[in-house]
Amino acid sequence: MPEPLKLKSPADFIGKQGPGVISFGSGQPDLPPPKEAFEGVNLNRDLRYGLIQGELKLREALAKEYPGSTPENFVITNGASEALDLIFRIWGKGAKVLLPRPYYYSYPPILEMANMVPVYTDLIDGRIDMDDFKKKVKGCKAVLINSPSNPTGRVEEIETLKAIEKITKEQGVYVVSDEVYKDLIYERENYPIHGDHVITVNSFSKTYCMCGVRVGYLWSADKKIIDDVCEMKTHTSMNTNLIGQDMALAAMKAPKEYIDHQKLIWRERRDFIYKGLLDLGFDLWKPEGAFYVLPKCKNAREFLTVLYQDYKVITYLGEWFGAPDRIRLSYALDVKQIEEGLSRIRQALKKVCVF
Amino acid sequence: MPEPLKLKSPADFIGKQGPGVISFGSGQPDLPPPKEAFEGVNLNRDLRYGLIQGELKLREALAKEYPGSTPENFVITNGASEALDLIFRIWGKGAKVLLPRPYYYSYPPILEMANMVPVYTDLIDGRIDMDDFKKKVKGCKAVLINSPSNPTGRVEEIETLKAIEKITKEQGVYVVSDEVYKDLIYERENYPIHGDHVITVNSFSKTYCMCGVRVGYLWSADKKIIDDVCEMKTHTSMNTNLIGQDMALAAMKAPKEYIDHQKLIWRERRDFIYKGLLDLGFDLWKPEGAFYVLPKCKNAREFLTVLYQDYKVITYLGEWFGAPDRIRLSYALDVKQIEEGLSRIRQALKKVCVF
Repeated sequence: MPEPLKLKSPADFIGKQGPGVISFGSGQPDLPPPKEAFEGVNLNRDLRYGLIQGELKLREALAKEYPGSTPENFVITNGASEALDLIFRIWGKGAKVLLPRPYYYSYPPILEMANMVPVYTDLIDGRIDMDDFKKKVKGCKAVLINSPSNPTGRVEEIETLKAIEKITKEQGVYVVSDEVYKDLIYERENYPIHGDHVITVNSFSKTYCMCGVRVGYLWSADKKIIDDVCEMKTHTSMNTNLIGQDMALAAMKAPKEYIDHQKLIWRERRDFIYKGLLDLGFDLWKPEGAFYVLPKCKNAREFLTVLYQDYKVITYLGEWFGAPDRIRLSYALDVKQIEEGLSRIRQALKKVCVF
Repeated sequence: MPEPLKLKSPADFIGKQGPGVISFGSGQPDLPPPKEAFEGVNLNRDLRYGLIQGELKLREALAKEYPGSTPENFVITNGASEALDLIFRIWGKGAKVLLPRPYYYSYPPILEMANMVPVYTDLIDGRIDMDDFKKKVKGCKAVLINSPSNPTGRVEEIETLKAIEKITKEQGVYVVSDEVYKDLIYERENYPIHGDHVITVNSFSKTYCMCGVRVGYLWSADKKIIDDVCEMKTHTSMNTNLIGQDMALAAMKAPKEYIDHQKLIWRERRDFIYKGLLDLGFDLWKPEGAFYVLPKCKNAREFLTVLYQDYKVITYLGEWFGAPDRIRLSYALDVKQIEEGLSRIRQALKKVCVF
């Protein structure tokens, strides 16, 4: 048995993708952006500062996607990451935030860096446990939900989302709803949580396969939140890069078929990896959105080490996502690679006891 | 006398630049970027996540500008703003930071949001007072300097910069040196502060007139600082936008004449506004770099209100920069506009007593 890799976070795998490596690691689409995105680049563009809140045309286009909204309800950010960071920084001061676990691995550090205190509610079968949620939401400043979820691949029931909407409203608790995978749901349309107490976080990264361009946004009906976020962003990063905003606006002009076609590809991959892992004996939730599976896995660190060192397969430790008895696989790679990866996993299973 | 405008910060002037308005407000070049910048845009580019630390090619090019450096010494950021924000956030925890006053208006909020405590040393005749500096630097975690300075336009003597280098090194205090105006010095070459205890913050915004693209960087010889900044940026914004990084790299290929030519323009404007304000009776420091003047001005808020409401001239309150008895004017506009602006200021002087 090799010595387990000393890995602290997904960042430790950056640059480790040499030839022959199959990576189930990185959580980003491998598909190309729509051609419209590049058509948005204007090579004679004014490059002076833009509005901190974001380009008006982009916010106007977004307002059309959010019923009852105006451009004033949006702030364009350096990806969803910055949107989340800004929101929690304007609150800070020791306030509690309810967080379903397993969670996206940046959530706890973002909360802690903002001097907020995460309070966890453990998922049951990959879904929010409303009984526990109701108990723990009391006294929280906000809840942070993510449906479809990275890393579980689960989509919360509309009934659950409506219940969260209602309870939080009654209790005066904000909902921060990270919906970056909203266009990657296999089972149904997205149900965006509504209300004056809701802050929606979104991104062009996953829908339009342009993670590296770093354009995301937040939506809120609360003018004070918008103003406070803009005030903070004035000092911490100024406007979001203008070329990226132009590209995001242009990407929105891609035909609906672009997104539909992506979804077909993701669904095929989902079906393939889900069945493949079941066949290998893994116990896992069936993804309903996004592009992650989170199978149960004993001796996860040893297994991950063997997979990487002996079979050149990258997977992520569940413990980075608050699930120490699991590993996370992203299926953002083509079916042939998934097939090869599964075949290597089959070999590795002979060396480590994971069930 | 009109009721004074209720202005809290420069952000309150955003969107107020209608037709006929002369703005001495915004601190950004009005000149175009080098044509090379746009040539850097690759319309077939991979848009997946880039390295959190920044594109290797860009860091390699920067390393050539910093003697003895390697690409590992740099982190590419969303402008100098994010570089500053990240640095202070990795420290935080109530530590003290020495700050010359007047200061760039984002410095105190950035420090406070990072839970650091600003300690001020007041400039004498627009320059750091080393006696006071030596007294107050004791027990500080870091000092934050900005030469050439926004808002004073002053450039510290090389002797002063060397003394700061030495004292801070002896006392184990970090120096954060914001050098975004390093290429806009009228009197001499820049003297970049050296040392393992120095973190240099820089940007492509002012040198290459591309503020809206949001590409800056920090330099440090301390691997732990680089690692901590990258770790934080992994959660708060991921990589800096890739298209902007490509443009920044391409802009560096602009011939030296591009920067030299800009400097001639800035110097002409500097001479014009400096003489013009002196002739009007203002008491002000002669700018040696950057593009700001900070004349003394009694009843600054009233004067600013009259200037804006009666004469459509935008200026900034000195109090936003820690100088309540002054106003700040940026001369990032052409000589004809400066001339017209000065003529309106002459009119306004008849209505408000500022001397």
